[in-house]
This record gives sequence, C-alpha cells and structure tokens, in this order.
Amino acid sequence: MTGPRYTDLAQSLPALVPFVGPEAQERQLNQAFRARLGANESVFGPSPLAIAAMAKAAAQTWMYGDPENYDLRLALAAAEGVSPENIVIGEGIDGLLGYLARLLIGPGDSVVTSAGAYPTFNYHVSGFGGQIHAVPYSGDHEDPGALLAKALETNAKLIYLANPDNPMGSWQSRSTVEKMVRDIPEGCLLILDEAYSQFLAPEDVPAIDPNDPRVIRFRTFSKAYGMAGARVGYGIAAPELITAFNKVRNHFGMARISQAGALAALADQDYLAKIIAHVAQARTHIAEIAQTNALVALPSATNFVTIDCGHDGDFARAVLANLIAAGVFVRMPFVAPQDRCIRVSAGTNGDLDIFAKALPGALSKARADL
Amino acid sequence: MTGPRYTDLAQSLPALVPFVGPEAQERQLNQAFRARLGANESVFGPSPLAIAAMAKAAAQTWMYGDPENYDLRLALAAAEGVSPENIVIGEGIDGLLGYLARLLIGPGDSVVTSAGAYPTFNYHVSGFGGQIHAVPYSGDHEDPGALLAKALETNAKLIYLANPDNPMGSWQSRSTVEKMVRDIPEGCLLILDEAYSQFLAPEDVPAIDPNDPRVIRFRTFSKAYGMAGARVGYGIAAPELITAFNKVRNHFGMARISQAGALAALADQDYLAKIIAHVAQARTHIAEIAQTNALVALPSATNFVTIDCGHDGDFARAVLANLIAAGVFVRMPFVAPQDRCIRVSAGTNGDLDIFAKALPGALSKARADL
Repeated sequence: MTGPRYTDLAQSLPALVPFVGPEAQERQLNQAFRARLGANESVFGPSPLAIAAMAKAAAQTWMYGDPENYDLRLALAAAEGVSPENIVIGEGIDGLLGYLARLLIGPGDSVVTSAGAYPTFNYHVSGFGGQIHAVPYSGDHEDPGALLAKALETNAKLIYLANPDNPMGSWQSRSTVEKMVRDIPEGCLLILDEAYSQFLAPEDVPAIDPNDPRVIRFRTFSKAYGMAGARVGYGIAAPELITAFNKVRNHFGMARISQAGALAALADQDYLAKIIAHVAQARTHIAEIAQTNALVALPSATNFVTIDCGHDGDFARAVLANLIAAGVFVRMPFVAPQDRCIRVSAGTNGDLDIFAKALPGALSKARADL
Repeated sequence: MTGPRYTDLAQSLPALVPFVGPEAQERQLNQAFRARLGANESVFGPSPLAIAAMAKAAAQTWMYGDPENYDLRLALAAAEGVSPENIVIGEGIDGLLGYLARLLIGPGDSVVTSAGAYPTFNYHVSGFGGQIHAVPYSGDHEDPGALLAKALETNAKLIYLANPDNPMGSWQSRSTVEKMVRDIPEGCLLILDEAYSQFLAPEDVPAIDPNDPRVIRFRTFSKAYGMAGARVGYGIAAPELITAFNKVRNHFGMARISQAGALAALADQDYLAKIIAHVAQARTHIAEIAQTNALVALPSATNFVTIDCGHDGDFARAVLANLIAAGVFVRMPFVAPQDRCIRVSAGTNGDLDIFAKALPGALSKARADL
C-alpha cells in the first residue's frame, strides 16, 4: 500500500513555510504579542466604510463571489486610469505571483531578483523549478542596473523589483524605473511589486504604459488599505498577459466579503490619505526611538522603518529575539549586510510606546552577549 | 518589443472560464435573478453565530490570517475524529484540487473521472498537462468499478469520485465506497469529493482510515454551512500527503474573516442540523413541483435536485434558457444522457414558488420548439 506518486519536481521541493506567522510565535511563547509590528500590516485598520461593507456582506457569504471580480475590476481600472482589460485580481500579490510563475516558469528557467528580496516570490519560482539568480543590494537599494545585466546574462524570463522595497524601505527614483523599463531585455518580463506604492509621493510613482508587454505592476489592499487578511491583490499589465491568468487562476477563489470590502475601501480615498499621514507620523516616531537608542533609521517610503542596529546579523538577530521575548513582534532582513537591521512596521502611539520601552533592554542584552 | 515567454504548457491552455458566474449572466440579461438556485449555494445562509463572528472579524482584517490555520485545523480534527496532521485547509475544494493536481500531475500523466463530473477538477488536471480519461455514468450514478478498471488500464495517478455526486445528486452505498478504497490500484490516489457529505445519512458516510495513503477526502464550508463566498475547504488524508501541500500552497491565502466564520460555523452544529432539515424539505418541495409538471425528480443526497426533463439535451437546454430568461438561475449537466436534466438547488419557499411559477411556461415554450 504505497502513497501517491508525486511529480519529480514536487518530490524535490522542501516542505518549508516561507514565513512563520506571528500566531505560531505566540503559540510557541505561550503569550500574545503586545505590539504587532512585524508583518507591515496596517494597525490603523481598514476604512470604517470598508469594515461596514464587510460586516454587511457577512450574511451574504452563502453566495460565491463573482468569479470575474467585475465590479472591483471596473472600479480599479477607473482609479488607476487604465482599462478593465489591464486588471487581474487575485488572492493577494502572493497568489498572483504564484499564477505568474506558473504561466512562465518551468524547470531550469532563469529568474532574477535581489538577494534578500521578497522570499515568497522565490518560493513560487522554485516551486515551478525555476533557477533564481540573485544580485546584491547596492547601498540598501535594489540595483536596477545589476538586475538588468544579470537578466541579460542568464536569459531570464522574469525580473523582480519591489519599489518601494521590502525589507529595506528604500525606493528608486521615477526616472530610474522608467529607464529600467526601457532597458528590459527582449523576452523578459519585469515584475514591479508596488505593494507599498501608496506611500511614495505621487510624483515619484513611475509612469508606465499599461499596455507595455514587458511589465506587470502588482498592487494590493493589504498595506495602505489595511486589509491584509482579506487577500485582495491586483496586477496591471497588457491585456494578453491579463487574459493568460484566466488559464490557471482559481476562478472562484476570491472571498465575497473581501470583494465588497475592497470596493468600499477604494471608494474612501479620504481615509487612505489619513492613513498615509498617520504612517508618516509613525515613521518619524520610529526614527526618533531609533535615534534615542543611538541607532540609525533608514529612509523609508513604506509603512515600516528599517533600523540599522550597527553591528552584524548575529547582533540584530539577538536584538530581534529579545524584542520578541518582550512581546514585540518585529522581523528583519535575512541576507547580509542588510541583516544588520531590524524592520519595524508603523504602529499606533500605543504600539510604539511598547516598542520604545522594550528596545533599550533588547539592545543592552544583545550587547552583553557580544 | 515582445511579450513574456510562456511555458509550452501555458501557451497550449485555453483562456476559458470553467463556469460562468450568475453575476455575469445578470449583467448579460441586464436584470438580477429573482431566484438564485444554480450553484448549490445554501440560500439559508450561514449560522447567525458565524455571521456575527465574521462581522466582528471585519475590523481585524488588517491582520493576515494565521498561515497555519491552527485553530480551525484543531477544531476540524476534533470534529472529524482525526489528528490535526490529517487536515489541510485551503481556498475552497477548488483551491485544494489545484494544489493536489500540481503535486501529482505532469504532462501526460493519467487521471480518471466520470464524463460530466466536476469540470473544475478537469480544469486543474489539464492545467498541469494531465490526460483525462472519463468513464460514463451508470444509471445516473458514477461507476466505481469502471473508474477502477480505467485507472488500472491507464496507470492513473488520480481517480476522482464525488460522493454524493454533483451534478446528479446520486450517492454510493457506504460499502461500495469502502470496497472501492480496498481496490485502488497501486500508486493511485482516490480523491473523494465529499462537498455534500453532510446531506448523507450519517450511517451512509464511508469509514476510511485517515492515515490510508491511497485516499484524500475533501469537505467544505461552501454547501451545508452556507459559506461558499468565504472559500474554506479542507482535505483529510495521511500526514505525508497533508505535509506535501505545504510545498506549494499559498500559505497566507486564507482570508482571516473566513477563518473566524468557519470556526464559528463548525461550533454551531444545531444550526447545521436545522439546515439539513430545511434542505430535505426543499428537496421534497422541488420533487413535488417536478411531479406537478409531469417531470421526474431524481433521488438526491445533496442540497439540490436533478430533474429529468424527459427529452434530450437540446430540450433541457431550452428549458434552462427559458428559466434563466424568466429570472431563475439554474444549471444542468453537460454530458449526454445526463444533460436531459436540469439541476435545481434547495431554495426558500419563496425561491421555489418563483421556480414553480416559471417552470410550466419554460416547459411549454421548449415543447413548442420541439
């Protein structure tokens, strides 16, 4: 009596979880975190109008969601100034990255990203047998020139660039990204992960022809809109690529409540503007806390601040472990030399007070172990 | 300036939607359906406790859901009398079928199902290049003996059996399924789709060792629990197979509100019992409407009734089109000879009154065109 016959590829994959969730850490610590500042969620929550729309939709959840996401696609197209044919909606950017990898990547296909960039992208690429070529960050920024050169060298099918970047919070100038698009090698698709784009100054957001077949931009309701748990991401790309998603996506995969919530959140741009202001204040607050502790906060165009702890990765990992033990959920980059930092999401004043109180002890304990 | 380079497999796939949703039909008709009885959703809705839990969770949707689905897995394991290591949770059975196909199926691999069975399963198998071998229904039942023989003949990696069956509403005796499990060919996995299992008499539900490596059972909150729009399905299988899902699944793919809703729904077994009774009444009501119109309602252990319209597929398709035009959303089997039927989901008395009023005209108009 033997088990199922897996594909060779599936057989070869590790059964690892790309991230451990904060709930798993809480179960391990046997206590709830006092401040949840590790996953770049928006502690400020969704728009009250979105909350109301979701609460109202709860009783309607006996119906499947519209598999075409018609209303939301239309609203997003209007908001983004593109056609609905330029929009695909999916179960978060994570889900869409998985579908895209499936459409393009087979065993041995080359993909280029930065060492230490979004691991879930790598998870999906490896999951389809792709070969990841990672180039180093340059001065805590992703390096468009190096990404392009590596793509040319490896005949890559995909380049991944997050702008603004996670985990460093850094960003590229508009002209840099626009030049990068012009220079994409033939047959290569640029994934521009813009999960944090609402935190960029509008004039810093690159202008890209939505019908350009060489680029797909991904955006999300998980960050500025405060709806990470709703799982609503979207891609903006040329209609041919958008249509291709229909070949592989889970058509009835979108939660109906999430569709309703995203639609209401999108309509409440006043609330979004308030959140962006709250996040800017929180970034300043985090930078002040860093400075008080003689640490350097890196500039950020996101809803988090990456703090240089001033030593190596082992030191930062010790600081992180001490913060976690003190009930403060934070995360950190995992590749040197960026792993000298910890990453702290924008929080309420209450959250940041908890962080401010925990940090000095976390640092002194780590220093004592140096 | 060329587009992305798709895999050969992706290039070969049709950009079809497996089902057209009722919302798309409503947009086409430019009117809302008066009765939504086509997707085997539970018009009775979720438990009030689940609705309350989801409404309460709306404000918490700024947090990602727990990627391990820990609480729900634990609760399901207790409810099913298995270990949490036997449970995988995903974005509906649809999502889980996709992951399972990805784990097992590569180009040319054989898969066995019934002609006219669940098309989304075929969509996922074809999407990974699998070769589908379909055997006919026997007397409006899926045919376990024929499925097993075909699996042996084609060296199939997967057999799909829905019990109770969609779209026919028929079911297998407990001993038939248990014998089928004993007879699964070496190296083949039986997918037992039990989306409708709560509508079976408990003594008719087959007993299967959850650690048997040859079977995975799929169940869902979409049908009896009335939460189709929440996208919560689960699989029960041996730990090795359950663990394999972690290699490919969208770890952060579950909506947080859905997790909360499913947990509350599962805890409200009194409500579930009431729904099962409501559905039984509705089935009787649908059968009476069929009889009034000189049609034969097939026996059903599901939340729908399949009605034999007494002629061929063209006739049933005409009846269906007339019902849709009259504002009644219903569907039908799509393979002969089962396509002589239409399929009507359990509705409220109000829904079924609308159906009862529309049916005679739909029939007479179809007869006039014979």
